[in-house]
Amino acid sequence: MEEKPARSTVGKFVIEAEEAQAMAKESGVAAVRELLPLLVPAAQRLARPPISNYRVGAVGLGASGRIFLGVNLEFPGLPLHHSVHAEQFLMANANAHGETGIRCVAVSSVPCGHCRQFLQEIRGAAEIQILVTSDEDPAFRPLASLLPHPFGPPDLLHKDAPLLLEPHDNELGALDATGVAVGGGGLCNGIGGGGLDRRLREAAEGAARSSHAPYSGCAAGFAVADGGGRVYSGSYVESAAYNPSLGPAQAAMVACLAAGGGGGREGGGWGIVAAALVEKETAAVSHEGTARIFLEAVAPGAHLKVYRFRPSTAV
Amino acid sequence: MEEKPARSTVGKFVIEAEEAQAMAKESGVAAVRELLPLLVPAAQRLARPPISNYRVGAVGLGASGRIFLGVNLEFPGLPLHHSVHAEQFLMANANAHGETGIRCVAVSSVPCGHCRQFLQEIRGAAEIQILVTSDEDPAFRPLASLLPHPFGPPDLLHKDAPLLLEPHDNELGALDATGVAVGGGGLCNGIGGGGLDRRLREAAEGAARSSHAPYSGCAAGFAVADGGGRVYSGSYVESAAYNPSLGPAQAAMVACLAAGGGGGREGGGWGIVAAALVEKETAAVSHEGTARIFLEAVAPGAHLKVYRFRPSTAV
Ligand SMILES: [Zn+2]
Ligand SMILES: [Zn+2]
Repeated sequence: MEEKPARSTVGKFVIEAEEAQAMAKESGVAAVRELLPLLVPAAQRLARPPISNYRVGAVGLGASGRIFLGVNLEFPGLPLHHSVHAEQFLMANANAHGETGIRCVAVSSVPCGHCRQFLQEIRGAAEIQILVTSDEDPAFRPLASLLPHPFGPPDLLHKDAPLLLEPHDNELGALDATGVAVGGGGLCNGIGGGGLDRRLREAAEGAARSSHAPYSGCAAGFAVADGGGRVYSGSYVESAAYNPSLGPAQAAMVACLAAGGGGGREGGGWGIVAAALVEKETAAVSHEGTARIFLEAVAPGAHLKVYRFRPSTAV
Repeated sequence: MEEKPARSTVGKFVIEAEEAQAMAKESGVAAVRELLPLLVPAAQRLARPPISNYRVGAVGLGASGRIFLGVNLEFPGLPLHHSVHAEQFLMANANAHGETGIRCVAVSSVPCGHCRQFLQEIRGAAEIQILVTSDEDPAFRPLASLLPHPFGPPDLLHKDAPLLLEPHDNELGALDATGVAVGGGGLCNGIGGGGLDRRLREAAEGAARSSHAPYSGCAAGFAVADGGGRVYSGSYVESAAYNPSLGPAQAAMVACLAAGGGGGREGGGWGIVAAALVEKETAAVSHEGTARIFLEAVAPGAHLKVYRFRPSTAV
């Protein structure tokens, strides 16, 4: 392939529809979706796989015409289930940007079974078109050809239940007024102080409202702040198959990197100084312990506050 | 189907070859593998899914002629990635019993993508025959038909590297002589005392030697003891796709349940009083933090000792 994507896109995780159109024209491809495989090498360069050194890039076209990138993230010192795969990053990135559908994805290596399962959380998953750039004959083929006879949301949920990339507005109920903050009060390393605490809590709360957690009913959200006081948040995303679920802390790191945070470069740490977790009280699924060890590995010394909500209705 | 398996097998996770032959005859089926779907309902009854209440049973025939059962395990209060799927339980169970191959598996519902990926760790995975008892036309079909164009060990390992169910004898090197025990010394709740500590350490060490961890090079083993002083151990099993890896603590719970431990009944707790983890020093993958929160949720107050080995050669 001779076409080259415009240089202006390098390092970006979201490309606006207008820019995507212009890039397609500039690259000499007939349609925007033909641009996706051309962007895969740039995506791979953004990956952070310090354990495997195996770089995966995924590039998807949204229903809005925007292009979303995804890369794999690995976190040394933690069990491997903390890893985020490029396809998961892509979907969490699209989700955080309010995208309502992803119909085409180009990826650098064939999606693993974990990702094929995770993608089932999107309505009409069978028809998502996947192109693997390392294939001998790269072509868009339906996800159903990679995961025939799937197990997924229809096996467990009512057909009208919202799926991933569909609007969620979980009723959280009141945050526990007596024991709101767990893990110490006061200022966050002096950065922003109480104002930052409030912004982190609000961001994590918003992410919890958008969380896709229909299987356990335990919506959760996570927010992280960097040294410059910028706040990034991510929603917990469950999988019908349980284990491929994307944790809220991982989703926040996706949002951080996609928004230009995360230390700006690989290997230089993530630059996170404080975080907040919002989750359900006495939940069947609690992220607190895991979020603590994740944060300690990714951002040693960062401050975590945990807020629990007492649901008034089912989530 | 009118055939019924012998009652004597109820509650057992391993059926010896001779007994399997006798049961097949008694059940009027032509071959032992036809017995597998008949045992699925009994396997489902052994499942422990307190979150989903969705019972999965898997029954596999080993190269030795033995039959192995697997069930799903869920652990309330923890993230969903702590769950063990029935197919993973089955393979960990077979692995713990020195089985060298599983060629046929009957399972109550179609394997999820996570499991289809996990099964890739077995040599010749494409040809493992899977029968789904809830299908309209249950029949043994190759795993390749459920996970075509797989990502797996051949993408990352030398073709001669040992896979799951093949012999592993990881060279651990010396256990750190100075800081061997992390997390408090002394007696384990008075049960067995120093003798139990030693047995737990030896069991975890043996499990670490057998661990399948070719991707990170971080072999690990876990052992748990119940109130009767019985010790059960499990080996960490990695997946080429990282996230579907089976943690060492989960593998130990599989061994516990398969050997008749685990409190003997669902919902009554696991009856674990002490545990040991053996893992690599300064590892890219460390299970300690996760094992602690797992143990605290599964067996509150149980005592954990962590031993780290300083590898002399690559694992
Ligand atoms: Zn994947
Ligand atoms: Zn599964």
